[in-house]
Amino acid sequence: MTGSEIRQNKATKQWVIYAPGRKTRPKDFQRSSSVRSEIPERQESCPFCPGNEHMLPEIVMETPEDPAPWQVRVVPNKFPAVTPEGDRNRVSEGIYVKMDGYGHHEVVIEHPLHNRQIGEMSVTEVERVVEAYHRRYVNLMQDDGTMMVLIFRNHGTRAGTSLIHPHSQIITTGMVPHYIRWQEEGAQHYFDEWGRCVYCDILAYESGEEVRLVYENESFVAFVPFAADVPFEVWIMPRVHKADFAEIIDEEKEDLAAAMREILGRLHQNLNDPDYNYIFMTSARYRSGEPQLHWYVQIRPRLTTTAGFEIGSGISINPSIPEDDAAFLRGEPE
Amino acid sequence: MTGSEIRQNKATKQWVIYAPGRKTRPKDFQRSSSVRSEIPERQESCPFCPGNEHMLPEIVMETPEDPAPWQVRVVPNKFPAVTPEGDRNRVSEGIYVKMDGYGHHEVVIEHPLHNRQIGEMSVTEVERVVEAYHRRYVNLMQDDGTMMVLIFRNHGTRAGTSLIHPHSQIITTGMVPHYIRWQEEGAQHYFDEWGRCVYCDILAYESGEEVRLVYENESFVAFVPFAADVPFEVWIMPRVHKADFAEIIDEEKEDLAAAMREILGRLHQNLNDPDYNYIFMTSARYRSGEPQLHWYVQIRPRLTTTAGFEIGSGISINPSIPEDDAAFLRGEPE
Repeated sequence: MTGSEIRQNKATKQWVIYAPGRKTRPKDFQRSSSVRSEIPERQESCPFCPGNEHMLPEIVMETPEDPAPWQVRVVPNKFPAVTPEGDRNRVSEGIYVKMDGYGHHEVVIEHPLHNRQIGEMSVTEVERVVEAYHRRYVNLMQDDGTMMVLIFRNHGTRAGTSLIHPHSQIITTGMVPHYIRWQEEGAQHYFDEWGRCVYCDILAYESGEEVRLVYENESFVAFVPFAADVPFEVWIMPRVHKADFAEIIDEEKEDLAAAMREILGRLHQNLNDPDYNYIFMTSARYRSGEPQLHWYVQIRPRLTTTAGFEIGSGISINPSIPEDDAAFLRGEPE
Repeated sequence: MTGSEIRQNKATKQWVIYAPGRKTRPKDFQRSSSVRSEIPERQESCPFCPGNEHMLPEIVMETPEDPAPWQVRVVPNKFPAVTPEGDRNRVSEGIYVKMDGYGHHEVVIEHPLHNRQIGEMSVTEVERVVEAYHRRYVNLMQDDGTMMVLIFRNHGTRAGTSLIHPHSQIITTGMVPHYIRWQEEGAQHYFDEWGRCVYCDILAYESGEEVRLVYENESFVAFVPFAADVPFEVWIMPRVHKADFAEIIDEEKEDLAAAMREILGRLHQNLNDPDYNYIFMTSARYRSGEPQLHWYVQIRPRLTTTAGFEIGSGISINPSIPEDDAAFLRGEPE
């Protein structure tokens, strides 16, 4: 690739600029040393560590269940962004529309050990995390007021958390955000035009091309998307077409855990424990049965900064070429 | 306000969650001391300092013009995200769409002094910056390939720049990004429904309510928007309805400079020089004559971090209430 190139995300139609003049080698994104290497297995002041249950507002669920010692524990967020006490109706304030902060906000404590990150767990341990996500997802969707359930993980300060203990979060909302609607409309336009799911088409194409593939197993394909927003972005996508994460079956849970463990492990190893977010992209409640949607997991390392151009235009500038990122994550020499 | 509240941006329909459990006082956002207080007036290695012209690829424009010493200078970006050499046509790569990185990428050097930030300049100095923006905007729009001109400023590392010397940037693109289209469609829906510009309605309402007003002069009103995305976000909006920044008249330039100087000065003073972005939100080329659009300047301090929930849902979580932020920026005691 000579000169810069602009690519379009096939699903959302968002553009991303790849600027080789700003390009760095994958190595430049490595931390010089892991800031998290000196963390102890247990910390006295951490509410998520075993023995500190008195610091938790409540325990929503544990797995494995009593009397075995828990590995994954779900608790309410102590400083929730939304709460189920609020009213779900929208109200006017002058010319504007607002509503109470209705929803659920939970924390998934992923492991009893304070310093055991997902990229270092066993596949069985990650599978228990996926199992907890699934059980909470299904449960929270039973609330009639839930229009969307978002499962996500913030790892490190650049990704928005200062808590070390391995955890992820689940937030539900009483409306479908505009951004989700917009993505779902994009998929619908494609389905209207071609009669196929855009994500199925992407998956089939990436499996055939291989150049952006990172990992695959029986149920999942992991690849750097053609129009990746950020360096080393990876999508883990189920081979079987389903709109809704609720539909995942047990065998897929194990394969998803294996894929997550593998990708997060490689990021941890090869980039020296970078900060990242991951997000379970899944359908809004009222579209969970629709044929054009396809859930997947989006992993986004936080190695670059969003600046004025990105905020104002919605176009990302990515200094890193997806094909190079995929080769690096496959472990090929630079 | 008890409990959290969710507000809708009237123009874009995006939601923002205000979570008082996560609330901090404005003071908590102050830097303990300015990291930029020890910066010299000139730095030997800085390509933007006078005397270092040999480090610049070219000088696009200067104001005031020769033989007076320049105050504002526009130069090409040395590591451009886009270049005018590229082809403007879209091409296929397998199932995807891409194009060359076509566009212009310029840097506006705002002042000869290495350490003179906009919030510390005189109004006349800021007016020269606005004048340079306007001249480049009009000039770049004359390129038939320009579909959008985005003027923006990144201040500080959290806002995406490590260069100290006061500067802003201009990037043009050969397509209208999806995000801009989407905003413009929102304004169009409103116009179809009510026969009025949504931004004019917001401006009239905020002028009357006063609770979110920060500053006003003859041509501009500055306020914290009802559904501000981030703490201390401020919109500077022209009273006269125009879609396109190109239409600004000389008297408005002076008033815009006064408003920018005032708001950025207050941020600098009251929050101890926070990192921020500002962006000139203006119509895409092909909609510059339309009655439903209204240009304005968006100022966004970078005091919080975007995490997984925001990325996945497009909903911001803002710990700071717009009315409180406005009172703080008006200088009222907490």
